[in-house]
Amino acid sequence: MSLFDTIQKPTLLLDSDTARANIRRMARKAQRAGVLLRPHFKTHQSLTIGEWFRAEGVSAITVSSLDMAEYFASGGWNDITLAFPANLRQISGLDGLAARVRLGLLVESVEAVRCLGEMLTHTVDIWIKVDVGAGRTGLAWNHPEAIQQVAGLVNNFAHLQLRGLLTHAGHTYHANGPDEICRIYSESTARMDTLRRALAARGVGPLQISVGDTPGCSVCDSFGAVDEIRPGNFVFYDTQQTYTGACQPNDIAVALACPVVALHPERSAAVIYGGAIHLSKDYIEDEGFRRYGLVALPENDRWGSPLPGAYVSSLSQEHGILHLEPDQFSCLKVGDLVCILPAHSCLTATCMGRYQTLDGQFIEIMPAF
Amino acid sequence: MSLFDTIQKPTLLLDSDTARANIRRMARKAQRAGVLLRPHFKTHQSLTIGEWFRAEGVSAITVSSLDMAEYFASGGWNDITLAFPANLRQISGLDGLAARVRLGLLVESVEAVRCLGEMLTHTVDIWIKVDVGAGRTGLAWNHPEAIQQVAGLVNNFAHLQLRGLLTHAGHTYHANGPDEICRIYSESTARMDTLRRALAARGVGPLQISVGDTPGCSVCDSFGAVDEIRPGNFVFYDTQQTYTGACQPNDIAVALACPVVALHPERSAAVIYGGAIHLSKDYIEDEGFRRYGLVALPENDRWGSPLPGAYVSSLSQEHGILHLEPDQFSCLKVGDLVCILPAHSCLTATCMGRYQTLDGQFIEIMPAF
Repeated sequence: MSLFDTIQKPTLLLDSDTARANIRRMARKAQRAGVLLRPHFKTHQSLTIGEWFRAEGVSAITVSSLDMAEYFASGGWNDITLAFPANLRQISGLDGLAARVRLGLLVESVEAVRCLGEMLTHTVDIWIKVDVGAGRTGLAWNHPEAIQQVAGLVNNFAHLQLRGLLTHAGHTYHANGPDEICRIYSESTARMDTLRRALAARGVGPLQISVGDTPGCSVCDSFGAVDEIRPGNFVFYDTQQTYTGACQPNDIAVALACPVVALHPERSAAVIYGGAIHLSKDYIEDEGFRRYGLVALPENDRWGSPLPGAYVSSLSQEHGILHLEPDQFSCLKVGDLVCILPAHSCLTATCMGRYQTLDGQFIEIMPAF
Repeated sequence: MSLFDTIQKPTLLLDSDTARANIRRMARKAQRAGVLLRPHFKTHQSLTIGEWFRAEGVSAITVSSLDMAEYFASGGWNDITLAFPANLRQISGLDGLAARVRLGLLVESVEAVRCLGEMLTHTVDIWIKVDVGAGRTGLAWNHPEAIQQVAGLVNNFAHLQLRGLLTHAGHTYHANGPDEICRIYSESTARMDTLRRALAARGVGPLQISVGDTPGCSVCDSFGAVDEIRPGNFVFYDTQQTYTGACQPNDIAVALACPVVALHPERSAAVIYGGAIHLSKDYIEDEGFRRYGLVALPENDRWGSPLPGAYVSSLSQEHGILHLEPDQFSCLKVGDLVCILPAHSCLTATCMGRYQTLDGQFIEIMPAF
């Protein structure tokens, strides 16, 4: 009996060979470039998959919450950057973790630095969050005086170790192909380097530079003048990354297997058991249409290439609607399985809470609480 | 110490008084109208909250998955409609559940009926799913011959009990105010009644009519010629329901408490710890802007009214960005809590996995597996 014969409900399949190849490729690229790979573990959120990184020489990681930091610390990771503006309501938990591991925290205001300095009792690394153009969080790269002020206050506290400048050039996710990704990536790292020099001229430093987004780290030949990179999504990739040109469809390592529950020939649409609570409601906008995922079929105990022109056109809580070409539609019957390549694999993994590998093993992600 | 003083990370607050008032109002309205309230439990997904419905006389429920049906069966519910096209890959589980409870299944094709008829060994109720205009699933209401064909096959199997016609007029969710909701609701129930009469003229029946969507059931004075209603979201309501006019902001019974982690005075934006994995990425589109939720402040151990003009303008995995008016912005500091009224409470509840009531108790939702 094949794996697909055993699947009864939405199941997040993980092709571990593809994921491990994705990890290996990035680890070797970083090694060749002489930069530290500090991968973001918010994509996979799994101790088991973490070990696949360790096997490629990774020893420092990035996470997005204290819960996630504690989970990976419990699995023996002891150099962890919490790449999220320090949450001052969790000071006590942060301090407890800092007693056990090398913990990096992000700040972007003197208020946060003062609170950390006064409340923490253990030593932490401090990264100043810089906005190089994404416009989500961080201090503007071209206002070094504000950053100097924050750095100065960090240096007032002996247990706050100023490590460097950290950014996430998240605007590469909206890039239109590899050339634009590389242009944004290079511009971002150049801005970080300009800032570092401006701060050095003011006597602040030495400072490391930490950058990292999957599109930039995947397609650019050079990482630029940086010390570490923090991509995360590359372990699985997803439909969004294929649209930006950061990967090929074959690099996608996860797919949601979903039963077909109804067929509507008059509109060439299939209804699947697989909705917003499984895939998340993230989507790619393409030619005016929303695509919540691409559609593939089971093929030799893996999933095949995405069906040309087919996509998930809408999602409600547990339903998905597939837009199919008529010849694709005519091959499906109620009770079949389809494999959806998610728009955004990080969110799909969080929704699903576990993976099933192609040889049938379950891999759990961190508990929600 | 108040509840808010204890909150360190995104926490889904539940105002049980408001939720119980919402349940009571709908139960009484159904009772007065002489229709069965068979509430959809996919919104709250909790045995504890289920008991609040039982206290108002509810004994029959609707769910959206076999897992959810089994969970509520374990809590003593024994009249359950699984309002989702029957998933033929779960026949064995459906059959096992049908041995223990009165189970209603949805069909919309002769293929599904044949499979259920041949594979099930226990008696089930069968509802034929009808599309009255929402265009998601179901057989078109104005093609009675196709429905007659399905009904005829159901009647060939002694253990498939043809119960009636079921629809979800989900297009009320896009209505522009109570008048349009009622127009769509009345049109939908009139179409169901027309279909029932057409089928009766062909000798098919008697058939019950089951409808139900929170907007229609909340605002229409009359439920029309129907036998049962299946609204679900009304237990909590949400921002989307206030936009359609189905409820007032004060009727919303859940809010996500989120720490403020960064402030950006130059764009009057606050960054909160609370993102797509907490709220879901559902949103309302209003005047060209996406609103992933409204913003309220803690006030006397509850949350206050939504701040006028403030909303969640974007979400990434764990970050939310608040758009605020300058005077609202100036009252906030890093480390404060805000309360987000979700765009779509069903998805937020699923993401969060549990509630905390205003008196500090935790209520779990069904396990993911």
